[in-house]
Amino acid sequence: MRSALGRPASPYERHEGLTRRDLLATLGLTVAGAVAAPTRLDAVLAQSQPEALRSPFGPDDQRGAANRITPAKVLEAIRLVKQGKVLDFGRVYEKGMPLYGNRVFALYTPSSGGPFGDNKTTYNDEMLTAQIGQVGTQFDGLAHIGIGDTFYNNTKLSDMVDSSAAGGTDGFKKLGVHNVGPIVTRGVLLDVAGYKATTMLPPRYEITAADLEGALQRARLDIRPGDAVYIHTGWGSLWMKDNATFTSGEPGIGVEAGRWLVSKQIVMCGSDNWGIEVIPNPNARLAFPVHQEFIPRNGIYNHENCATEVLLQNEVREFLLVFAPLKLKGATGSPGAPIAVV
Amino acid sequence: MRSALGRPASPYERHEGLTRRDLLATLGLTVAGAVAAPTRLDAVLAQSQPEALRSPFGPDDQRGAANRITPAKVLEAIRLVKQGKVLDFGRVYEKGMPLYGNRVFALYTPSSGGPFGDNKTTYNDEMLTAQIGQVGTQFDGLAHIGIGDTFYNNTKLSDMVDSSAAGGTDGFKKLGVHNVGPIVTRGVLLDVAGYKATTMLPPRYEITAADLEGALQRARLDIRPGDAVYIHTGWGSLWMKDNATFTSGEPGIGVEAGRWLVSKQIVMCGSDNWGIEVIPNPNARLAFPVHQEFIPRNGIYNHENCATEVLLQNEVREFLLVFAPLKLKGATGSPGAPIAVV
Amino acid sequence: MRSALGRPASPYERHEGLTRRDLLATLGLTVAGAVAAPTRLDAVLAQSQPEALRSPFGPDDQRGAANRITPAKVLEAIRLVKQGKVLDFGRVYEKGMPLYGNRVFALYTPSSGGPFGDNKTTYNDEMLTAQIGQVGTQFDGLAHIGIGDTFYNNTKLSDMVDSSAAGGTDGFKKLGVHNVGPIVTRGVLLDVAGYKATTMLPPRYEITAADLEGALQRARLDIRPGDAVYIHTGWGSLWMKDNATFTSGEPGIGVEAGRWLVSKQIVMCGSDNWGIEVIPNPNARLAFPVHQEFIPRNGIYNHENCATEVLLQNEVREFLLVFAPLKLKGATGSPGAPIAVV
Amino acid sequence: MRSALGRPASPYERHEGLTRRDLLATLGLTVAGAVAAPTRLDAVLAQSQPEALRSPFGPDDQRGAANRITPAKVLEAIRLVKQGKVLDFGRVYEKGMPLYGNRVFALYTPSSGGPFGDNKTTYNDEMLTAQIGQVGTQFDGLAHIGIGDTFYNNTKLSDMVDSSAAGGTDGFKKLGVHNVGPIVTRGVLLDVAGYKATTMLPPRYEITAADLEGALQRARLDIRPGDAVYIHTGWGSLWMKDNATFTSGEPGIGVEAGRWLVSKQIVMCGSDNWGIEVIPNPNARLAFPVHQEFIPRNGIYNHENCATEVLLQNEVREFLLVFAPLKLKGATGSPGAPIAVV
Repeated sequence: MRSALGRPASPYERHEGLTRRDLLATLGLTVAGAVAAPTRLDAVLAQSQPEALRSPFGPDDQRGAANRITPAKVLEAIRLVKQGKVLDFGRVYEKGMPLYGNRVFALYTPSSGGPFGDNKTTYNDEMLTAQIGQVGTQFDGLAHIGIGDTFYNNTKLSDMVDSSAAGGTDGFKKLGVHNVGPIVTRGVLLDVAGYKATTMLPPRYEITAADLEGALQRARLDIRPGDAVYIHTGWGSLWMKDNATFTSGEPGIGVEAGRWLVSKQIVMCGSDNWGIEVIPNPNARLAFPVHQEFIPRNGIYNHENCATEVLLQNEVREFLLVFAPLKLKGATGSPGAPIAVV
Repeated sequence: MRSALGRPASPYERHEGLTRRDLLATLGLTVAGAVAAPTRLDAVLAQSQPEALRSPFGPDDQRGAANRITPAKVLEAIRLVKQGKVLDFGRVYEKGMPLYGNRVFALYTPSSGGPFGDNKTTYNDEMLTAQIGQVGTQFDGLAHIGIGDTFYNNTKLSDMVDSSAAGGTDGFKKLGVHNVGPIVTRGVLLDVAGYKATTMLPPRYEITAADLEGALQRARLDIRPGDAVYIHTGWGSLWMKDNATFTSGEPGIGVEAGRWLVSKQIVMCGSDNWGIEVIPNPNARLAFPVHQEFIPRNGIYNHENCATEVLLQNEVREFLLVFAPLKLKGATGSPGAPIAVV
Repeated sequence: MRSALGRPASPYERHEGLTRRDLLATLGLTVAGAVAAPTRLDAVLAQSQPEALRSPFGPDDQRGAANRITPAKVLEAIRLVKQGKVLDFGRVYEKGMPLYGNRVFALYTPSSGGPFGDNKTTYNDEMLTAQIGQVGTQFDGLAHIGIGDTFYNNTKLSDMVDSSAAGGTDGFKKLGVHNVGPIVTRGVLLDVAGYKATTMLPPRYEITAADLEGALQRARLDIRPGDAVYIHTGWGSLWMKDNATFTSGEPGIGVEAGRWLVSKQIVMCGSDNWGIEVIPNPNARLAFPVHQEFIPRNGIYNHENCATEVLLQNEVREFLLVFAPLKLKGATGSPGAPIAVV
Repeated sequence: MRSALGRPASPYERHEGLTRRDLLATLGLTVAGAVAAPTRLDAVLAQSQPEALRSPFGPDDQRGAANRITPAKVLEAIRLVKQGKVLDFGRVYEKGMPLYGNRVFALYTPSSGGPFGDNKTTYNDEMLTAQIGQVGTQFDGLAHIGIGDTFYNNTKLSDMVDSSAAGGTDGFKKLGVHNVGPIVTRGVLLDVAGYKATTMLPPRYEITAADLEGALQRARLDIRPGDAVYIHTGWGSLWMKDNATFTSGEPGIGVEAGRWLVSKQIVMCGSDNWGIEVIPNPNARLAFPVHQEFIPRNGIYNHENCATEVLLQNEVREFLLVFAPLKLKGATGSPGAPIAVV
């Protein structure tokens, strides 16, 4: 569990932890520009040019790969339903769940209002404070990740932020998650853990394109444009069981596998880990490079912390996938579980 | 706009308002027990006995009418999809939207973290503080409404609250919205405004069972067990256009219409108003009696502030309805838009 | 660390903890009314009559013992200043500090707004979510603690709560902490640990009136009406060092010592523990009885989690004490450090 | 009420407002760097060099002008107390108070926990979400305002932010308000409105050094090093009476008067307006230039939204001033009222 630069690999810090740890140090990274020694980087960086961020969906597009969901695609997905079985494969949002870095999830449910009227109506409600789009099972929108100051479709951060909004902005002006729309499409589960003959991939294992192809063939399936692909690593079995290990890094796809998925023209990629991709990246100078491949470069969404074991337990590999992001105006992400219907 | 007791009818207060108004006064109500004069109440009150709250779904049930969604029901709904068209008919969550009473919706989206790594990953996120299950388009769960201290399935408030949880409870122990599960069923839109030959029902109009039947016949549809029924009143056209009027009361179903829907064994009832039912109630001594008919008495869910005009504009009356409440452990409700697929 | 009923004594739960513990069980208590067996209680309970809660400061009083601070008392305190030395003896509010039960302290400090203008003004601010009056160094106001539904000066909870405030109340209508006013008076430190020839009193040690008198004589001081009395137990040395032990209970004054202080007509009582009083109480059927002696019965304030060691280190025993509660309208308490000037 | 560039001057937006207005436009400003035309600026900008930000209190200083409060200064202030009268001249924090831009103040006070034990202890508390250091009566710390990316004592923003703190920073690493310490010093009230023979200075009135000297002579006082100076403009009479006008701009000191105060080596400057200085600035290209004169250039603190009329009503011009910022680790400001003792 040591990074390429000899530092301990624990990029994730439990909210519960009393001590502060340095994310960058654990990633083996330094802040951009602070590196003295010369570096050799792979082709990822060669693509960090603004022109690479032009969207194929038009210069004003804010929906990204969700544009791939055509009526024909919806009907293709609907036709997968044979049994009328509905599976929710998200996690419960609760106190004590793993949280990234300094994030918080504070749900407060005092009781009770009333009774009102002669019919004695009483009511309860709840107050939540949280980074609502970035805790638990979460969907990463296009305002979440950029390359420097450039986001999806060459959108500049300065155009997203309301710089005149004194006292704090209340939503990004561009690429907000409310633009995405409901995702109703064909879902495919790739059981990479099973393909590798294990129940949980080891820490820091980089899933390759060959692994994805192997899992696909084992399931006798293909991946088609507009699909939502979920990857089972087994890492989710640590959720609420061993949060410390869960958050210390994760097995996941690398840049090569990410590009393979991009080439398949998918809409979104989910997994049972917290960041989709292998963390830390084997190239210790890269921070979340698969996030960049998907989100700013290709408008493809992430769905993190999914309970893919639910699909496995029900022997579901291909399904009608429904997920509707909360339409939080200008938000970067959304909570919410993916739903499979078979 | 005066209630039966001669008080102004504005049970709803804009978050933005500088002045405090008395909800009860505007409802023409007093706190239970504070009434000196004798009262004549209808049969609603005769039902306020604990035995009436026994669930037909078993003594331990926490899912209510969601139990009506069987695989056969799901398949029935799936078969309604012919075009592959997906309609989101929820509202955007945004600053300035109408909020009930003292509720808050504070979304804060500072930017930005990073850049990290030589690939210069930057990220944004958002902090939200809100009564998350009770703002905007919202789904009322079974922990939300009771009759005195008794909730659905004879659950006592004292059994729902963790009385030992010093410093504030973090979720109700019973009837939390995370128990509901995804709602995938047949949806039916009843255009009551259209049936009454108007675009918006007048303030305080009580929709009757006859109105519902009329709208149903006009659409040449029926209501079947397990359906989700959405009612278009036109009141939603005031949303973000005239919040003051929107929140001053509303047309909606009365107790009689509510019971008619209960008799149809529906799963949930949505509308384009903020409280489903006529407010204030024509019987000035009753506060939210339809909420009680649905939630504690019958385990039927409310879906408030829905954009039913989207269905109208697309000439959709019958559809595959998908809604998955956020699995907030122990919460009383959930945000989220209903999705129609046709 | 076992209570009289044989249950583990850890009434306090770290916010950071992943597991839930039962406060009542650890206190050796049950919810009022849930006890089947007959009980023998001391005179505390005999006083639980409403008439005992009449205030000596008049039927409309909302300031309690703060009324004891007369101009003459202020001048008495001012005359104690000889050196011009100012000591802040509160704790820093920070992530990781011990929190009672489910409470939260979430400070979020994104940067940055601007630059604005040709002069390039940039600014930062901070978002806080917390039980603001009940975290860290905290002052308990009169709306915080009651005996059943009765609070200070026979104020009923039903008169404090705005029952018509739908969607959550935004401040208690009576006894809010904004009524207290600044506390400028004579302060006295009682080093009970030192009197007992130790640096930290043992867990569950009940400080007696004799202990207080002993510490007082050792310091060659007296206690006068209107004084603010701070008690050094040494327990505060565990703060941020061993939060688990700190929060597992505490040495502190018992009911007898509390009454002795009441008889001295003090204004407030602070300490370096989190609840002023011995916890759990030796009488396992009592929950926070000293809180009741002070707050609802006598309008005397608590000041918890004070850094009394700062006074000791500076050899300060008698001082000008200044503390001004935040004027949060209708709040139950206030954050803020006590200030000693000598 | 038009700015130099012909735009309406309303730099402040009520939280309650339904519409969004452009702070910069109302200030007559554009974001730095977005100005095409050449500009002529006064000497303010000539000082925007890093070397100007060196602190006279040493290269590691984080306390700024608070260093001027020596024991001798404390004793000087203590000697001003003759009557034993204590005046709190802060505002109450409450719903509906004016808030800058998008800021929020959401206080939520559900009741009630308990009863616990046979002694029936009940308790209430409160949940607050707010930009805690930047709402209501507020004290601006040294982390609040910079010149570009440079803050007090040449501190770079990059050194203040924990760039590795994934998921949001929880306090600035440098210049946090917890470093300031209690302010116990001589206070002086300058009644500029009275000196100008009015009860409220007109909108956009720039208070000059001559005005300050005139008010000072009228009060037969002087300003000495280490003093806290409060300026009465009368603008505070609009608080909670006419929030719209209150927030549309304000009379206040200009750069020249600010520098005069700097030359007097004061510790802090308070006022009954929301931003201390004249807003908009007569030089339409400058945004909050007096904030920069005080905070980053000289380590002098602002105290905004003070109820200076309380001092006037009590005929107090010179007093013992006590203010202790909340020790929120790494925060940019603090709530809290100034206390005058005479």
